[in-house]
Amino acid sequence: MRLEIIILAAGQGTRMRSSLPKVLHRIGRESLLEHVYALAVSLDADKITVVYGHGGERVPRALPHLDVVWVEQAQQLGTGHAVMQAADGIDDQATVLILYGDVPLLTKETVARLLPLAGPESLGLLTAELADPQGYGRVLRNAEQRVVRIVEEKDASPTERMIREVNTGILAVQGRRLKHWLGRLANDNAQGEYYLTDIVALAVADGVSIQTVRAGCADEILGVNDRRQLAQLERVFQARQAARLMLAGVHLRDPARFDLRGELVAVGSDVEIDVNVILEGRVTLGDRVRIGPNSLIRDAEIGDDVEILANCVIENAVIGRGSRIGPFARLRPETRLAEEVHIGNFVEVKQSSIARRSKANHLAYIGDAIIGADVNVGAGTITCNYDGANKHQTVIEDGAFIGSNTALVAPVRVGVNATIGAGSVLTQDAPENALTLSRAQQVTRPGWQRPSKRS
Amino acid sequence: MRLEIIILAAGQGTRMRSSLPKVLHRIGRESLLEHVYALAVSLDADKITVVYGHGGERVPRALPHLDVVWVEQAQQLGTGHAVMQAADGIDDQATVLILYGDVPLLTKETVARLLPLAGPESLGLLTAELADPQGYGRVLRNAEQRVVRIVEEKDASPTERMIREVNTGILAVQGRRLKHWLGRLANDNAQGEYYLTDIVALAVADGVSIQTVRAGCADEILGVNDRRQLAQLERVFQARQAARLMLAGVHLRDPARFDLRGELVAVGSDVEIDVNVILEGRVTLGDRVRIGPNSLIRDAEIGDDVEILANCVIENAVIGRGSRIGPFARLRPETRLAEEVHIGNFVEVKQSSIARRSKANHLAYIGDAIIGADVNVGAGTITCNYDGANKHQTVIEDGAFIGSNTALVAPVRVGVNATIGAGSVLTQDAPENALTLSRAQQVTRPGWQRPSKRS
Amino acid sequence: MRLEIIILAAGQGTRMRSSLPKVLHRIGRESLLEHVYALAVSLDADKITVVYGHGGERVPRALPHLDVVWVEQAQQLGTGHAVMQAADGIDDQATVLILYGDVPLLTKETVARLLPLAGPESLGLLTAELADPQGYGRVLRNAEQRVVRIVEEKDASPTERMIREVNTGILAVQGRRLKHWLGRLANDNAQGEYYLTDIVALAVADGVSIQTVRAGCADEILGVNDRRQLAQLERVFQARQAARLMLAGVHLRDPARFDLRGELVAVGSDVEIDVNVILEGRVTLGDRVRIGPNSLIRDAEIGDDVEILANCVIENAVIGRGSRIGPFARLRPETRLAEEVHIGNFVEVKQSSIARRSKANHLAYIGDAIIGADVNVGAGTITCNYDGANKHQTVIEDGAFIGSNTALVAPVRVGVNATIGAGSVLTQDAPENALTLSRAQQVTRPGWQRPSKRS
Repeated sequence: MRLEIIILAAGQGTRMRSSLPKVLHRIGRESLLEHVYALAVSLDADKITVVYGHGGERVPRALPHLDVVWVEQAQQLGTGHAVMQAADGIDDQATVLILYGDVPLLTKETVARLLPLAGPESLGLLTAELADPQGYGRVLRNAEQRVVRIVEEKDASPTERMIREVNTGILAVQGRRLKHWLGRLANDNAQGEYYLTDIVALAVADGVSIQTVRAGCADEILGVNDRRQLAQLERVFQARQAARLMLAGVHLRDPARFDLRGELVAVGSDVEIDVNVILEGRVTLGDRVRIGPNSLIRDAEIGDDVEILANCVIENAVIGRGSRIGPFARLRPETRLAEEVHIGNFVEVKQSSIARRSKANHLAYIGDAIIGADVNVGAGTITCNYDGANKHQTVIEDGAFIGSNTALVAPVRVGVNATIGAGSVLTQDAPENALTLSRAQQVTRPGWQRPSKRS
Repeated sequence: MRLEIIILAAGQGTRMRSSLPKVLHRIGRESLLEHVYALAVSLDADKITVVYGHGGERVPRALPHLDVVWVEQAQQLGTGHAVMQAADGIDDQATVLILYGDVPLLTKETVARLLPLAGPESLGLLTAELADPQGYGRVLRNAEQRVVRIVEEKDASPTERMIREVNTGILAVQGRRLKHWLGRLANDNAQGEYYLTDIVALAVADGVSIQTVRAGCADEILGVNDRRQLAQLERVFQARQAARLMLAGVHLRDPARFDLRGELVAVGSDVEIDVNVILEGRVTLGDRVRIGPNSLIRDAEIGDDVEILANCVIENAVIGRGSRIGPFARLRPETRLAEEVHIGNFVEVKQSSIARRSKANHLAYIGDAIIGADVNVGAGTITCNYDGANKHQTVIEDGAFIGSNTALVAPVRVGVNATIGAGSVLTQDAPENALTLSRAQQVTRPGWQRPSKRS
Repeated sequence: MRLEIIILAAGQGTRMRSSLPKVLHRIGRESLLEHVYALAVSLDADKITVVYGHGGERVPRALPHLDVVWVEQAQQLGTGHAVMQAADGIDDQATVLILYGDVPLLTKETVARLLPLAGPESLGLLTAELADPQGYGRVLRNAEQRVVRIVEEKDASPTERMIREVNTGILAVQGRRLKHWLGRLANDNAQGEYYLTDIVALAVADGVSIQTVRAGCADEILGVNDRRQLAQLERVFQARQAARLMLAGVHLRDPARFDLRGELVAVGSDVEIDVNVILEGRVTLGDRVRIGPNSLIRDAEIGDDVEILANCVIENAVIGRGSRIGPFARLRPETRLAEEVHIGNFVEVKQSSIARRSKANHLAYIGDAIIGADVNVGAGTITCNYDGANKHQTVIEDGAFIGSNTALVAPVRVGVNATIGAGSVLTQDAPENALTLSRAQQVTRPGWQRPSKRS
């Protein structure tokens, strides 16, 4: 069976009050349209067509990686008109699935039940049972429970308005039938628009049976028209992800305070994630990883038994087995930590590699550095990697001890087992196995008077 | 139509278990009473009277800015008695609206529907339909749906208890009628109190029609009697504010994790606010401002395209267009940043101005400083602004480069394009276009032995 | 009345997908089993038996402090079989209460209503009314509302499935009766297991009356089978604790964003806790303590009028009256702060005592120090307490002023009212009332050329 999917993505989204086209707004890491595209891809569609709006060239430009046929709907003349723009190439025998670029949470399971209903003598329509159906077209059925038509809210009688089964607009239809009905859509209504929904009535008139599937969950069919709905669907999406992770064995202290904006590429066993953690991009978590509250982690590989304490910000880093990070640590891009490394509070690491068992526990800046194993970086240590024009490298070899408040003026090298005295400014290499320091003599001025408070 | 509003604010609030009078507890930034006062002001009241309780002189003293008549209810003899304290000056023809100082979320829209119902032959009563009406007086109606009386929970029959329409106590009544009925209230009940609710029965007895308005939302009529209710209304209040901002186009990643305690004076387009952000006081956000998670921002003006990264604390600061702040930055009062300034992790700025394109990216304290444009403040830089008695100023002119771990002993000036060597202690001015530093010679002591671990 | 409690704790918990036995997973600070144990202890049980599973020796080993009889169920042959393992020593006249190690939120109030129902002619059964009873055994009653049997979901007719009263498995039964019925349990079912539930039918057959108690709240009877349920019960547990604290007068800005994992040993009046705070271990809060957002506090005694600003991490510390901590402060174990101490942003304190009115407001590391009263610790000050092998002490006496960016190389002592010049490295004691410093001369090199950007 050939499957062609048409995604309608031309809505202007005025109520978003944004300069961004509506379908480019994000849920998690992906735009609304990318969510729908991912669904289409997961269905093994033979062709995916996206209908974007006039003035909406920003959409194809923003998403060049989508493997779709882009079709412009130059005038906004309704959903039927939108589908017409994509109708030319439709294969007669294909099943055509109509999706919406602003309905991002539809599941593959639901659509998979819908697709087989399209055929020469039947049309598959996705409906939903809503507690509050207000605003939606209602599905009218006859005594045999067959769908006879869709009635829009504004045209519905009080009795019809009590119907809670609504039309989602999502349908699966045979290509030949779709093209035929599209050609018969009229725009003799108040808005002068062509409504895709009208093909339901045309189908019934042609004796084609309307077969319905109910969405498993009302959230699946919700669309985004304003920021409130965007936020609502963001939370539904996050709750889904949290549920999936918990069923896989992740301990979330509060699923309502967890955000995954991207992909948990791999996750080990007995991982614990405290409240208010955000994972972004591609993250890997080893066995028994523990992540403290209020941490933001983006694009990271975190090894077994790593503990991330509270309030850390980690981006594009690799953290080796058994390391302990934070609280209040910041790992910036291209940080590579080996096993059992300790990075403590108010420490920033950037574009540096640190070998096993080394520690920088307090108030330090480590940038553009290569640090060996078993190194102790004292509190207040700064790698002076930038001279105002260029960045330079600091190398600290195995077993070195860097005294507190040391400035390492790069390029500079500290040898194996070297010790640097506290408060030094190191401008030349420090030899191995020796103490190196720069320090002025300590003097006391007994006669000195403290300043007094100005009146 | 003359409008006089009486706010009953004498409740002791014992269940709050607080030394603070109940109506002084806060929702958002304002006390409960200020919320009700703001509603009264928005209704263009000709007179606002607040009845406060015996021992409650703290209330008028705490809110001297309210333009109201303060009336003391020296003894706590019921709501009817409270209104009596304010009855003397009431104009016969005025509409009198009775509000409660501990019911903070009532909306102007609801009250505006109530006010026209007060008149010589009618009384306007606000009711609400509650899922769980327990504890409230029920509204009894006759076969014609006219209100005939209010029955208190404890006096209600099982059938009456099933009524879900409850009395809110909020009513609008003609001045002359009110004074007449107040004079007829009795206290022949178990508590020996005068109940305002009894005027409903008196009105019915006098042939005055009870006209009701239903509150748009049950939250509007909820009162605060304990800290649970305070927290519940805080969340309702915050959800309302979040909804309003989202409809205005603000992207909130999680409306349930957003707190605005004050006023968003202006907000640009395409503003994004991540989870767990708190805005306090008066905040202005330009176009495309992005605020990272877990940030606390109080009294700030934030320009277009500013990015606040995760975990920042900002107070009384102005941040120029295109600046980037954080993560883990703290801006303290009287910080003024021009355009494209970068303040990075573990950096504190206080009472300082920083001109365009200057950067302090790592571990620094900038206090009482004037910093020019294109300045680079190295990691670990400290302005030594306090000598134990007085604060002094540091001036760093355009284009200067401050090496890492530098201490600037104020008062001190660094000239245009000056460079300060890493690790310096600057006690005198540094001339422009030159390198200035204070640095001891680096020496190595090869024979030195590392200390060994004590047993 | 002798009370014997049997806690069934042998479930494997496969769906937790964890290497930890199910009952060792935690809600708050305590494991599931500890919650149930605490309930048992609160009921003054004469004997508590815990039945743990084959391979589950980890359970008794992990909880050696429980005063219980541990009984192993070597084979997993059902709940009836589990109780059989504990049956031998049961006193004939005792009331035996069956609890479940994975049902942690049952309340004493509910169980107290159940216990009196056990007797020679009656059995007490805890039931619950569930909105969604799916998966649970339903309680069948006859026309007189007497319980006649429990029907499992899979055996229930459509009508029976509509019953919303479910069996919780929790029951109170006379010892003699229990042993008798255990001996008659059969395992002629699909799983070949012995079901404890079957004793209900045996009791009815023996003319013993089934007396039921309904759980006050459905949450009480929920069990933990996967991480989703664990998270759900965690939130129920936290909401209960939050409600209790609020009723006691604590102001929680958002009860849904508050976690107490341990014990609030004492809490003063008018305590305010902002959003996203976590309290762990044993915490004491004095009157008017204010805790800012995103703070994590573990095992701390916090005096009256202390203010903890945003984003602090505090562990095993004592904080004296009127002190102000944070934002971004970290107090590590054995920190002792006297009255009115100020610890500011990016400051770490560890195993140190600080006397009254002393301040360390910016970027500092204070470890293994004894600091007197009225001391000012400048920004960037570091106690160099570790020489690579041992830790040493720093003593700073009353009234001393430590200039910014000072390194105090321990062991070292700063005398009363001594002043240390900014940027010093103090390797010897500094005498009282004098200025001590180590500082290289400031020089300027006018001919110096800045490095230029490499191409």
